[in-house]
Amino acid sequence: TMLGRVLCTVLFVGAFPSPAEASQGHISVVLLGATGDLAKKYLWQGLFQLYMDQVSSGHSFTFHGAALAALEPGQRLMFDVLKKLSCPPDEAPDRCAVLKDQFLKLSQYHQLKTAENYTALSREIETLLRQEGLKEAGRIFYFSVPPFAYTEIARHINSSCRPPAGAWLRVVLEKPFGHDLQSAQQLAAELAGFFREEEMYRVDHYLGKQAVAHILPFRDQNRQFLDPIWNQHHVERVEVVLKETVDAKGRTSFYEQYGVIRDVLQNHLTEALMFLIMELPANVSSAHEVVQHKLQAFQSLWGLERSSAVLGQYQAYDSQVQEELQEAQGYVSTTPTFAGVLIRSDSLRWEGVPFLLTSGKALDERVGYARVLFKNRAYCTQSSTLRDAGHSQCKPKQIIFHFGHGALNTPAVLVSRNLFQPVMPKDGWKEAEARPDLHVFGQPLSDFYMYIPVKERDAYSVLISHIYHGRKDFFITTENLLASWAFWTPLLDSTSRQPPRLYPGGVENQHLLDFEMVSGGVAFTLAEPAELLHPGGQMPSDFRAIQSKFRQSPLVSAWAEDLISQLASDMEEAAVRSVARSGQFHLALSGGSSPMVLFQRLARHHYGFPWKHTHVWLVDERCVPLTDGESNFLGLHRHLLQRVRVPYFNIHPMPVHLNRRLCVEEDGGAELYAKDIAALVANASFDLVLLGVGADGHTASLFPRSENGLEGAPTVVLTESPVKPHQRMSLSLPLINRARQVFVLVLGKGKHDITTLLSRVGHEPRKWPISGVSPSSGQLVWYVDYEALLG
Amino acid sequence: TMLGRVLCTVLFVGAFPSPAEASQGHISVVLLGATGDLAKKYLWQGLFQLYMDQVSSGHSFTFHGAALAALEPGQRLMFDVLKKLSCPPDEAPDRCAVLKDQFLKLSQYHQLKTAENYTALSREIETLLRQEGLKEAGRIFYFSVPPFAYTEIARHINSSCRPPAGAWLRVVLEKPFGHDLQSAQQLAAELAGFFREEEMYRVDHYLGKQAVAHILPFRDQNRQFLDPIWNQHHVERVEVVLKETVDAKGRTSFYEQYGVIRDVLQNHLTEALMFLIMELPANVSSAHEVVQHKLQAFQSLWGLERSSAVLGQYQAYDSQVQEELQEAQGYVSTTPTFAGVLIRSDSLRWEGVPFLLTSGKALDERVGYARVLFKNRAYCTQSSTLRDAGHSQCKPKQIIFHFGHGALNTPAVLVSRNLFQPVMPKDGWKEAEARPDLHVFGQPLSDFYMYIPVKERDAYSVLISHIYHGRKDFFITTENLLASWAFWTPLLDSTSRQPPRLYPGGVENQHLLDFEMVSGGVAFTLAEPAELLHPGGQMPSDFRAIQSKFRQSPLVSAWAEDLISQLASDMEEAAVRSVARSGQFHLALSGGSSPMVLFQRLARHHYGFPWKHTHVWLVDERCVPLTDGESNFLGLHRHLLQRVRVPYFNIHPMPVHLNRRLCVEEDGGAELYAKDIAALVANASFDLVLLGVGADGHTASLFPRSENGLEGAPTVVLTESPVKPHQRMSLSLPLINRARQVFVLVLGKGKHDITTLLSRVGHEPRKWPISGVSPSSGQLVWYVDYEALLG
Repeated sequence: TMLGRVLCTVLFVGAFPSPAEASQGHISVVLLGATGDLAKKYLWQGLFQLYMDQVSSGHSFTFHGAALAALEPGQRLMFDVLKKLSCPPDEAPDRCAVLKDQFLKLSQYHQLKTAENYTALSREIETLLRQEGLKEAGRIFYFSVPPFAYTEIARHINSSCRPPAGAWLRVVLEKPFGHDLQSAQQLAAELAGFFREEEMYRVDHYLGKQAVAHILPFRDQNRQFLDPIWNQHHVERVEVVLKETVDAKGRTSFYEQYGVIRDVLQNHLTEALMFLIMELPANVSSAHEVVQHKLQAFQSLWGLERSSAVLGQYQAYDSQVQEELQEAQGYVSTTPTFAGVLIRSDSLRWEGVPFLLTSGKALDERVGYARVLFKNRAYCTQSSTLRDAGHSQCKPKQIIFHFGHGALNTPAVLVSRNLFQPVMPKDGWKEAEARPDLHVFGQPLSDFYMYIPVKERDAYSVLISHIYHGRKDFFITTENLLASWAFWTPLLDSTSRQPPRLYPGGVENQHLLDFEMVSGGVAFTLAEPAELLHPGGQMPSDFRAIQSKFRQSPLVSAWAEDLISQLASDMEEAAVRSVARSGQFHLALSGGSSPMVLFQRLARHHYGFPWKHTHVWLVDERCVPLTDGESNFLGLHRHLLQRVRVPYFNIHPMPVHLNRRLCVEEDGGAELYAKDIAALVANASFDLVLLGVGADGHTASLFPRSENGLEGAPTVVLTESPVKPHQRMSLSLPLINRARQVFVLVLGKGKHDITTLLSRVGHEPRKWPISGVSPSSGQLVWYVDYEALLG
Repeated sequence: TMLGRVLCTVLFVGAFPSPAEASQGHISVVLLGATGDLAKKYLWQGLFQLYMDQVSSGHSFTFHGAALAALEPGQRLMFDVLKKLSCPPDEAPDRCAVLKDQFLKLSQYHQLKTAENYTALSREIETLLRQEGLKEAGRIFYFSVPPFAYTEIARHINSSCRPPAGAWLRVVLEKPFGHDLQSAQQLAAELAGFFREEEMYRVDHYLGKQAVAHILPFRDQNRQFLDPIWNQHHVERVEVVLKETVDAKGRTSFYEQYGVIRDVLQNHLTEALMFLIMELPANVSSAHEVVQHKLQAFQSLWGLERSSAVLGQYQAYDSQVQEELQEAQGYVSTTPTFAGVLIRSDSLRWEGVPFLLTSGKALDERVGYARVLFKNRAYCTQSSTLRDAGHSQCKPKQIIFHFGHGALNTPAVLVSRNLFQPVMPKDGWKEAEARPDLHVFGQPLSDFYMYIPVKERDAYSVLISHIYHGRKDFFITTENLLASWAFWTPLLDSTSRQPPRLYPGGVENQHLLDFEMVSGGVAFTLAEPAELLHPGGQMPSDFRAIQSKFRQSPLVSAWAEDLISQLASDMEEAAVRSVARSGQFHLALSGGSSPMVLFQRLARHHYGFPWKHTHVWLVDERCVPLTDGESNFLGLHRHLLQRVRVPYFNIHPMPVHLNRRLCVEEDGGAELYAKDIAALVANASFDLVLLGVGADGHTASLFPRSENGLEGAPTVVLTESPVKPHQRMSLSLPLINRARQVFVLVLGKGKHDITTLLSRVGHEPRKWPISGVSPSSGQLVWYVDYEALLG
């Protein structure tokens, strides 16, 4: 047999395993999509490298290229690729030539199309091994195929091509792993039907890039230096950047479906960011620990909103799409080819530190890096012109993981000399030679300690080696993948209708894609130049709020996100006005899910809100302990109070839990709250009351036909809800109607019917308590989103 | 008479006031210390300038130089000065020569030593005016004399030299205005016995410097640009700097008493800082509004601590002092000639923004400026090497008020071009010409809009003109002065024993005086080089904490500030340990004044404290509403809770105010608190209890011979204090003794007697409740400062 002959050759050459050593067993590598682009460009070379590296490991190998093509043309195509495999510069040419010859002999082409094809392949492997008297160690299936083919191939492997008991199976998957959270979940569920989690190796080739792969080891080996400074008090910002000069030409059929966020940010840049910001595991080689810490880091991130990103599209993109996808002349794509995204974390370590992720095509240069910029905390007394050439603390301080390309044109780790001299593993990294004229990130290279790999290695070679060694920490687990999609999907959804800024491409972009952090989000620095607008392209006007009347009161309506942002601004304005007038602002807030988005917006975007002078009251509360998940106050605390600085004394939760029991009449909680209001709020007239509306027309915790609170004295009442928890405490309608301003927020399709009804009925609070809201001398404003208003 | 002759000359020359115009009245200017350095260098020239400017104002003038010297030598000395007065370049030489001649004729020398001398001067003025038929408009007395002479001169002026009714008196005072808060208060009180506030013009000549004087008008005229960015979200830091190349040689008799903080920081730099950070008054020319806003700004500043400053002294200073003050060879001065100080504010606007004040003698260059540096909030997508020469948002953004000297060598206002083009008054300021080779603050001058005065004016000329016009907003009111001393005195006190770092002087200082912000304070960047230490000078060792035993338990002792910092570190360590062990940290804190300093330290210096997982309990409380000034909780809130992020639910004030009444037995507050403890604190064992000790041996609110809480169940009790407010709530001794750790903090001389007593007595809680503190299975540590320990 071929394998027998090769093993003989191997023994003949002498540097290779004896039969005893070869008893480690045999590994079969099956490359699906063996004649595709990725295989041609990287994968075969990576497999050849694996063979060169592992030929004396005691394992024997066969390599099976597979595709849909019939045997003859497939074989020819594949061997055309294999013949071009190159010998790495550090390999002795003689040895490499011998090994390449062997590698070719160990490689075969297979047509894998039908269930029978897979069964046949499996039998062939078994037969071969029986003939050679080898035991099977494992099989690697590398999926270098489009994602629509995944499920069927997976089914075939699982049913017809699993190795016998005692040998392992590793399937290697290439992105895209879905298109958004839902599709990723679906794909993950399907794959889980065929493979166990530990059998799946999802590739993000950035994890094979040497500078990316070294982030965690660097943090680990330099703990002593980094511990005091790796936090919000010392880090000014973190940037993770991949800039490309090429555009999407020739790939628009893929790109038009994905765009830059799915193509680069969701995976490559996010993974690099996670390595930088996750809490450092005690053991950075433990795949389990790393993924757990990564998931925690995902949990700490603020949700992305439309204002978290700026999006661009190079000008030629539309015509490329029209040509390649045979779209009509007028076709306008909103697929972004450039994105700048601001990510923030709530963790104690990173609160307030901006993480900026940027990537784009048709930019001025090709470069990728992750950069941690430190704050300048120094004052240098001597004038800079009179200082010696030393490494002053007033110079910028940064740590850069340079992925490749750019002016440096190599993977590298750079640390400012005024920070510390890093510990670097001598076997993997060496100090770079001086390049006196080179400046990076605004500083001469001599300002840095710079390390480069002793041996530069291609990401795919690295990853193929990791697959062979079963190093799962270099691959994306299902949990990790879904956490990333859960993080990115809201941004993808909220920007899907947004026309990206057009840019000319190349160095002509100049400042057009510069962006700035503005009140919690990002925005392009320059106004959109008129000549670059889509020809004839009016922007959709649905982003603006419309103003009208509803039930004789002002109505503000817009899509939910814009409505919330308008409401938050109006609340800040009311607060500022009230503080200017009376020195304080008494704000009564409702619970429920709609206000949570509002609370988040207030906490994140409204620096000018006079929280120090604001009293926060509750409109209503469920009779549960304040720390119960059902408590309105808990929601308010989580989304607002713990993020802003309202003084302790100005926070007024409803006393639903007195004497360690809940809403017991004789504990007098409602009366107590009413007394507190009377004591602190002038005339018991809140400056602003925020209400919602239930599908049954309830508001606050005042339900249809309630015995309490719909009329009578302006007071606080105990009520009964038709849904659990039944017991409630609520401001009464007469108390609400004393307010200076009442804002009613109504969001979502589920409220369309009640909204329509309310537009028609009069004052009937016993039927629909919300219809009784009518401030006696104050102002009522309705904030109703398009879904509630228009259905 | 002389005046008559001059008036004739004036009329003859013709460009000068007619008798009708002269009816505005006569002004007599008396310069006390007429032959001193300041008078020679600035004041006579300023008075001459006043005369030139105001000769046609309708006022007539006489100028009276005064000193202690007898008439003949004094006259000669003074006229030597007057003869050298120079004509400003923008004045026609002919006119100036005529005016100088007149000015000399209107000037006389007087010996002012005795009460009679003052009476005589007053009579002379009156006689002269009667003779000329002029009415008196006012008298200006300019004190250019050492401060010890102030009181007597003031007494004489008040009793013998006031102008007649209807004419005003203005006395002009030169610093130093005291040496610390107490001496400044004393001097202010003395002066208040002689002059009304509106009669006093305290000079800080920085307020006459054109760039300093323009800070408020600049902020006012550029409100539209500054409003959105003049706050913590956009400003990275504020620097106010005065660097000198000269040293104190020849002035050590003054300097040795004052030092750089009193000489420069307390007055000049503080005033410039206040103009930058105060809330902008609606009317920036209103002296009253400006001073009110300035006082508010002082109120918002964090108190200074020893760690707020770095101090230096140029090496030659000691020998200069030895020589000039005839001190012994071994004399070592701790007077600082260099200071860098970090100032922070609590205001909503400036929270978190460092204000750095720096000044020193024998530095590398002479320059003064105030600089507001803005944060970089931009990401510039294009590589800097490929950007055009535009004013990218990624370049530094700053606004500089350049007082003078330095490379610019002129007063100037500079605004980065990537910020905005400022509005500048055309009559006072003009755009500076390009100076292509000049770099300032690390940027080419072309990066700035730069404005210089149309006419450069000396600060004293400016101020003398303001005195004449009664512009009190350019002078330091008593309130302002005392606020500044109240702010600086704690730093002066706490650093008075601290040996400053020695520096060689001039450009050789290099990085030796660079400093960095470190955990809430500042520290020199470089370690002290050994060769610069005081020869034979061991540092006093009293800054370190000593460790010993007290009542069989560990004792930590040090000067108060060091003790507090040790205690805060130990508390953080306990907290971190506890959170690692159990996920939370239950901390019970005492009220009173000693802990307040501790709370401040915890809030400002302990970033790593796990507040999110800390529960804060009270050891005891006074039966007053929580917002009452007497409430322990209020103190805790003000100094700690409002500055850190303890979740609302983890804050446990004692329920002394239930049902809107205070500590009523049947409201069951004590039981409620005990139940809360039982529910939340495992085993009712606090992780850490912080106690104090009263002079009577009480601790918590457990007083000698208390009926409750000294023994029995571990519970919460109502007790009676011998001092008001009598009613208290307190943890009982048995409950305290269940804690894992108990730290007792004892500060101050007033506690020396009880400390001594406690070192001798045994377990007698009925006599001395503190002696009953003895955790059953926990640890007790005493933190006693030297004053309490050693008396």
